[in-house]
Amino acid sequence: MQENAAKAIQDTYPDDFAWCYGCGRLNEDGHHFRTSWEGERTVTIYTPEQKHMGIPGFVYGGLIASLIDCHGTSSAALTLHRKNGHEIGDGAEPPRFVTATLNVEFLKPTPQDVPLKVLGTVEEIHPKRWKVHSEVFAGDTLCARGEVVAVVMPSTFITK
Amino acid sequence: MQENAAKAIQDTYPDDFAWCYGCGRLNEDGHHFRTSWEGERTVTIYTPEQKHMGIPGFVYGGLIASLIDCHGTSSAALTLHRKNGHEIGDGAEPPRFVTATLNVEFLKPTPQDVPLKVLGTVEEIHPKRWKVHSEVFAGDTLCARGEVVAVVMPSTFITK
Repeated sequence: MQENAAKAIQDTYPDDFAWCYGCGRLNEDGHHFRTSWEGERTVTIYTPEQKHMGIPGFVYGGLIASLIDCHGTSSAALTLHRKNGHEIGDGAEPPRFVTATLNVEFLKPTPQDVPLKVLGTVEEIHPKRWKVHSEVFAGDTLCARGEVVAVVMPSTFITK
Repeated sequence: MQENAAKAIQDTYPDDFAWCYGCGRLNEDGHHFRTSWEGERTVTIYTPEQKHMGIPGFVYGGLIASLIDCHGTSSAALTLHRKNGHEIGDGAEPPRFVTATLNVEFLKPTPQDVPLKVLGTVEEIHPKRWKVHSEVFAGDTLCARGEVVAVVMPSTFITK
């Protein structure tokens, strides 16, 4: 379910890197998370499907973790792309990141049938290593906080 | 895909709590993670499906996070159940847990088409709060480490 109207960084990944179950546009079965800018923060909006329950009425934790993970790597990609002088859709290929660590703090049960909005703040800790602080909202309720350390994808992945 | 031969704690959850996309036996679309004992450690074995890729050939991070999350709460349930004098299938209803925090360290790319084995060590930090240290193996390769703080499910969930 694609819900962000704005151009998303995932729209511009090369085909070989567009298969992620979380955020790959070419993975027919996946979530198709899409991440873009909202002011100085990054944003991903996604409404989990009914089947993605933990207990009836609430979203299962793995979906929240996956959302924070893909939002994290994509937010790092958006930010490094901008640092390199590029914006989504200007024709330049964006950098790709992998996750080194993922931390999730579940603050409140996340209700189903509500669009979840993830807002990210990105911090450079090394030219190839970025930390993304995320908050997951259901309406006005902060349901989870996340932190992802994302690393520029090693060349060993790229030659696969 | 159910791959653990032994009795699993998830087999004994009451129907109302058996709908989790990660580990609920009644969720037809879900992963059906199943967690049991292997000696003094807890174990979950699962082979991700082809669609669960990050990039072709490797499992996406959200699946690993979900596996560690459900393995964590189920391992805490197994352990508290045993502390209370019960074993899987003795007719007693096991305790249920929710996740407070989930930390994942991605150590190596996780290959597809290989059964993943998660081994957990459970530590009591409070009668209602347990920490589960997990390792995710693909064959002999340690691909990820996880830590879950699991809390006995609050009564506000149970009355839903």
